[in-house]
Amino acid sequence: MTSPNPFPAGATLADVGEFGLIGELTKRFEQGPHVYVGPGDDAAVIRTPKGHVVVSTDLLVENRHFRRDWASALEIGHKAAAQNLSDINAMGGTATSLTVGLGAPPDLPVQWALDLADGIAAEAALVGASVVGGDLTRANEVVIAITVLGECEIAPVLRSGASAGEVVAIAGRQGWAAAGLAVLGRGFRSPRVLVEAFKQPEPPYAAGLLAAHGGATAMIDVSDGLLADVGHIASDSGVAIDITTSSFELDDPLRAVGAALGVDPLEFVLGGGEDHAIVATFPADAVLPDGFRTIGVVAAGEGVTVDGTTYDGPTGHAHF
Amino acid sequence: MTSPNPFPAGATLADVGEFGLIGELTKRFEQGPHVYVGPGDDAAVIRTPKGHVVVSTDLLVENRHFRRDWASALEIGHKAAAQNLSDINAMGGTATSLTVGLGAPPDLPVQWALDLADGIAAEAALVGASVVGGDLTRANEVVIAITVLGECEIAPVLRSGASAGEVVAIAGRQGWAAAGLAVLGRGFRSPRVLVEAFKQPEPPYAAGLLAAHGGATAMIDVSDGLLADVGHIASDSGVAIDITTSSFELDDPLRAVGAALGVDPLEFVLGGGEDHAIVATFPADAVLPDGFRTIGVVAAGEGVTVDGTTYDGPTGHAHF
Repeated sequence: MTSPNPFPAGATLADVGEFGLIGELTKRFEQGPHVYVGPGDDAAVIRTPKGHVVVSTDLLVENRHFRRDWASALEIGHKAAAQNLSDINAMGGTATSLTVGLGAPPDLPVQWALDLADGIAAEAALVGASVVGGDLTRANEVVIAITVLGECEIAPVLRSGASAGEVVAIAGRQGWAAAGLAVLGRGFRSPRVLVEAFKQPEPPYAAGLLAAHGGATAMIDVSDGLLADVGHIASDSGVAIDITTSSFELDDPLRAVGAALGVDPLEFVLGGGEDHAIVATFPADAVLPDGFRTIGVVAAGEGVTVDGTTYDGPTGHAHF
Repeated sequence: MTSPNPFPAGATLADVGEFGLIGELTKRFEQGPHVYVGPGDDAAVIRTPKGHVVVSTDLLVENRHFRRDWASALEIGHKAAAQNLSDINAMGGTATSLTVGLGAPPDLPVQWALDLADGIAAEAALVGASVVGGDLTRANEVVIAITVLGECEIAPVLRSGASAGEVVAIAGRQGWAAAGLAVLGRGFRSPRVLVEAFKQPEPPYAAGLLAAHGGATAMIDVSDGLLADVGHIASDSGVAIDITTSSFELDDPLRAVGAALGVDPLEFVLGGGEDHAIVATFPADAVLPDGFRTIGVVAAGEGVTVDGTTYDGPTGHAHF
């Protein structure tokens, strides 16, 4: 769905101006059937949702959340949209629309902004959502502010609903993005499949709604790190969770990178975020929805253990 | 609605950490009846709206959209929320909820972030809206990303609905913020009422819904400048608009500042933005809703004129 760049090669945002660029950006955002009024008015209007409205927002800052020398603008756009869409997924909702604020220095190439828009639009299209509005302004560093709206036809699945005796299950790849980041951080570019997983995650977008319909009692997407995010379910639900490492098949690329970097590949799985896997708890007798596999159990108590004991590896990251 | 700051005097974001600060920020955001799930989960959930969902977003960057030495964090919070709430107003909608992304350097005083939150929450409370979610991250400069959601019970009033023969009307103060900015830009601090109007605008929040119910055919909020924004109605509606300067009462403070700075006070009125006045077009025989006064007429043609001729004063501002 990419449109050509009508500006001279090498043109920057300062050359083109805000209004010229907004017009070109908007061409990249196809408006789906959810949209009543798209970009260009004081606000966008989304048709009355099925059920409640779900909303999530993220602010991404250059060199902190993404690096222009590590990933293309297209990949950064995909990833920025993915991490917000994943939050709607983790509530059992369906994303309908996004707004995008872009702050950028005047010397940013216009092509970069257009590619970013293409990436966001393409990722949103995977779930049928449209970019309906945004804002463009000058800033000293590139910042991307994305808000996603969705609809939640049945009751949203919160982090707080897990009970002792239930099982913990996961859908989606886990640990690949962390391994890819470790590779990039050491200055390597392969295994390519892991680097790609870091640069452009592939969240299991069908999993959230399936889990909600399949009786999930609590749910979260893995963005800070598996144990950290499982810990949010444990603390919000007032329960203890034990993760069983033998339930993870250590994918070949994870083993290869672990061996190459001298790291236990389980660290990528247990500490890794950004694959946006979905973790949910289910009653012990539930039939797990397609794509989910059991990785642990819920018990009375508090905190997260691994194979019954405290885990002392990396579990996630803080932001200040 | 302000909570005490529990941190040591002079504490910075780096001292307190992301999670500690998020907890304190969240305390400042009272959750109204629209909110089904507030801050703290993967996403917030807003109850099914009356009618369609309206959404608007703005990205504000330090020293471009606000200056920490010109206005307090409380005032900046009020203003940041106001300019988004005004966009919902300009559609004829009712705001229900906001998300706030804050990017900040680690040496930002915690008190500043808390005051910002208080300002946003207080402004949102004026229209019954709640801050339901957000994101906090490190950045090299302070950036504030606000998205407002609202509901639109009747058809939204777009910029594109004006027809020849209608009248143009305005609700709210116009030109005060621009005059306040001119005062601050010259290093003065008075007339205080104008400086306050720039630092903390008072949009006519009731006007949008009244206009929508009162038969408005097109509507916009004045944020770029009166003539620039009237120009958006003209171009989107495919009509010409003439503004009659004699319809404006030049308020005393505007005259005083005009005289002191050697500026025609009409320039503040015609070129000024940021008061977030509401401009709407109505059929010629309509009874204008409370608070609206006629300032011009719609005719066949294109472009905006002032008293029948081209205006060559300042009409607004571009962003790159």
